[in-house]
Amino acid sequence: MAPKPLILVTNDDGITAPGLRTLIRLMSAIGEVVVVAPDKPQSAMGHAITVNNTLYVNEHKGHTDGASQEFSTSGTPSDCVKLALNEILDRKPDLCVSGINHGSNSAINVIYSGTMSAAIEAGIEGIPAIGFSLCDFKWEADFSSFEPFVTKIVKEALSRNLADGIILNVNAPNTKEIKGIKVCRQAKSNWKEKFDKRTSPMGKEYYWLSGEFELLDKGEDTDEWALSQGYISIVPTQFDLTAHHAMPSLNNWKFDE
Amino acid sequence: MAPKPLILVTNDDGITAPGLRTLIRLMSAIGEVVVVAPDKPQSAMGHAITVNNTLYVNEHKGHTDGASQEFSTSGTPSDCVKLALNEILDRKPDLCVSGINHGSNSAINVIYSGTMSAAIEAGIEGIPAIGFSLCDFKWEADFSSFEPFVTKIVKEALSRNLADGIILNVNAPNTKEIKGIKVCRQAKSNWKEKFDKRTSPMGKEYYWLSGEFELLDKGEDTDEWALSQGYISIVPTQFDLTAHHAMPSLNNWKFDE
Repeated sequence: MAPKPLILVTNDDGITAPGLRTLIRLMSAIGEVVVVAPDKPQSAMGHAITVNNTLYVNEHKGHTDGASQEFSTSGTPSDCVKLALNEILDRKPDLCVSGINHGSNSAINVIYSGTMSAAIEAGIEGIPAIGFSLCDFKWEADFSSFEPFVTKIVKEALSRNLADGIILNVNAPNTKEIKGIKVCRQAKSNWKEKFDKRTSPMGKEYYWLSGEFELLDKGEDTDEWALSQGYISIVPTQFDLTAHHAMPSLNNWKFDE
Repeated sequence: MAPKPLILVTNDDGITAPGLRTLIRLMSAIGEVVVVAPDKPQSAMGHAITVNNTLYVNEHKGHTDGASQEFSTSGTPSDCVKLALNEILDRKPDLCVSGINHGSNSAINVIYSGTMSAAIEAGIEGIPAIGFSLCDFKWEADFSSFEPFVTKIVKEALSRNLADGIILNVNAPNTKEIKGIKVCRQAKSNWKEKFDKRTSPMGKEYYWLSGEFELLDKGEDTDEWALSQGYISIVPTQFDLTAHHAMPSLNNWKFDE
């Protein structure tokens, strides 16, 4: 019998998040699970890493969701993956899964996402990786419709080889009736910021960042479109940010005159 | 006479960094400059934004490098750009420049870079944007050989239209004799992490993240190659992370059985 695959589970909402607990439970039915997750919420951390501060790792005991070991760290999601791969795990994992995030990481959100940064970090290190997110940011979000799809996607990913440098960004609509899965491209979009300006009790002005998501893409092949139609979106995501198609035109610029 | 272009200047090393001061001085010879930069170093912050904390903005007075106004903020580089575009500037800037970073943002470093996240944020908001970095992380780094190239690149960018969604990642080698400019792709690379494990005076174990850059790409069309040969590298960079080439193979996966 083949040994069980080793699955590294992480997230950005922190080690107690219900979305993480759900993912640990699902993954424990498939493989041996080790959890390395932040000890506090780290949403919107993008691909931050901790270079000017110390990192603490604590074993997280008393867990009952089926992981063989769990650890919390003081670091960002990317730090968690680096610590797992270099200090905690004794062998290379077969897969890294991140999430299930409480909230969408579709469209431009992928750029700000701690969930996806953890998965991308694993991808950079050559580990097949998937980020899972549900389009419901509430702590008590209901992951149950998404669960069988998470299991299917992970089993399929383990049975095939994810191409080197490709990370899957999987988002699920917040609905009881998921229609299926669509492979998509990242929708062009933006956040229309709105800063809420307030005055502190000491009389100093400060801001809260908020905003509204703005879809700038009418395509019917995007993640936003799939989600709006009740489908799960899978965007193959890469960390080669080169805009290869822009190189010929840039090569025509005159820098040397 | 055409009005002077409005140039937003930011960085991730903080408002007092010599690289930023150099960039302000160079840009002030080309256009009207407004500076919005972090009040403290924000290196390796990736594309983090501040959603669970307040943001403060202070006018930075007594500056003498030619900017019409300078502001420091308590936020990340991406926050600075969002604040500038939404709260501080009274019109859309013609260009956003970020840097000059003390240290390389070539190859995989672009993913972790606060400098580039600021430029990318501007790009997401539809502003032409360029990140500049010198391959010398020292505070007293010598930017003088890079300076005329920065001016040339900015003038050329202002005279042409940067395609929508394309941000320039410009890195300069740390040499007196820069040979010229090459348009490049991002080199495949990695950091070989080394965690330095120590024990606190209270007996608790902790880690420092460090590591060695590992080039995994022998191509002679990469930013790393150009830099190693004494050239400035320009990588056209995008925030559409979709691995379009991976979609046909993913569409062959069997999710629905």
